[in-house]
Amino acid sequence: MNSACEQQQLPLTTKQIKLVVAVALIDADGRVLINERPIGKTLSGYWEFPGGKIEEGETPEAALLRELHEELNIKTSPSCFAPIAFASHSYDDFHLLMPLYICHLWHGDIMARENQKLRWVKGVELYRYKMLPADIPLIPLLLEWL
Amino acid sequence: MNSACEQQQLPLTTKQIKLVVAVALIDADGRVLINERPIGKTLSGYWEFPGGKIEEGETPEAALLRELHEELNIKTSPSCFAPIAFASHSYDDFHLLMPLYICHLWHGDIMARENQKLRWVKGVELYRYKMLPADIPLIPLLLEWL
Repeated sequence: MNSACEQQQLPLTTKQIKLVVAVALIDADGRVLINERPIGKTLSGYWEFPGGKIEEGETPEAALLRELHEELNIKTSPSCFAPIAFASHSYDDFHLLMPLYICHLWHGDIMARENQKLRWVKGVELYRYKMLPADIPLIPLLLEWL
Repeated sequence: MNSACEQQQLPLTTKQIKLVVAVALIDADGRVLINERPIGKTLSGYWEFPGGKIEEGETPEAALLRELHEELNIKTSPSCFAPIAFASHSYDDFHLLMPLYICHLWHGDIMARENQKLRWVKGVELYRYKMLPADIPLIPLLLEWL
């Protein structure tokens, strides 16, 4: 019996799950857009995929449309979102569950509406940025799609 | 401008998101385990991946460990779960968000504790079963991992 399977008791937790949706916008050159978390936000200085918390009553797609408009001033359609991976990550105060979509098509010019730094990054260069701990495991999965 | 991007207004909804975790157990021959939803459950007669609702205070992994024990009498460890895809699907009463893990290693003999029918299925044969509507888009993604 492989000992990797034996440990099956997880500590009881009252951590709430926080649902956050994220997207990898991919341009014609196969580069991915990431942004630096603004000063003032928790974990500022880390880089992340655009997105945000799914509010009460929203579907993941509706939340993502709203966030893309609020953060980057672009519009798109749920038919342009492909679900490819998710992150499940325990922070101190909550447990993050973050579905990640990819999107190749949007309308409008990308604008950093929260004055966040933006970068278009080629594949493995994502590893050169200090990405959020929860985002790091998504990188190898995303690379498969670029 | 591609018309695919133009439609960006989604109807306001008060549908709650229901979080359900699912797993593709994969055996040494690369076959995947599916079960038929028991009589009495909604959508009975459809086939699905094992798993279930994430309860209050549970992480996705803790919920999956619990469900695997309750449904199939097996034990494993979160280190044996690899997150690979997710389903986002609107039913009449709620919106389903379902992260899917794969798992190659567990302890114990699989037993259908809810008298559900079980099948070990080879790759594309998954399409021969009447899978839950929400599960169907997961199949091509899962096939990449078998």
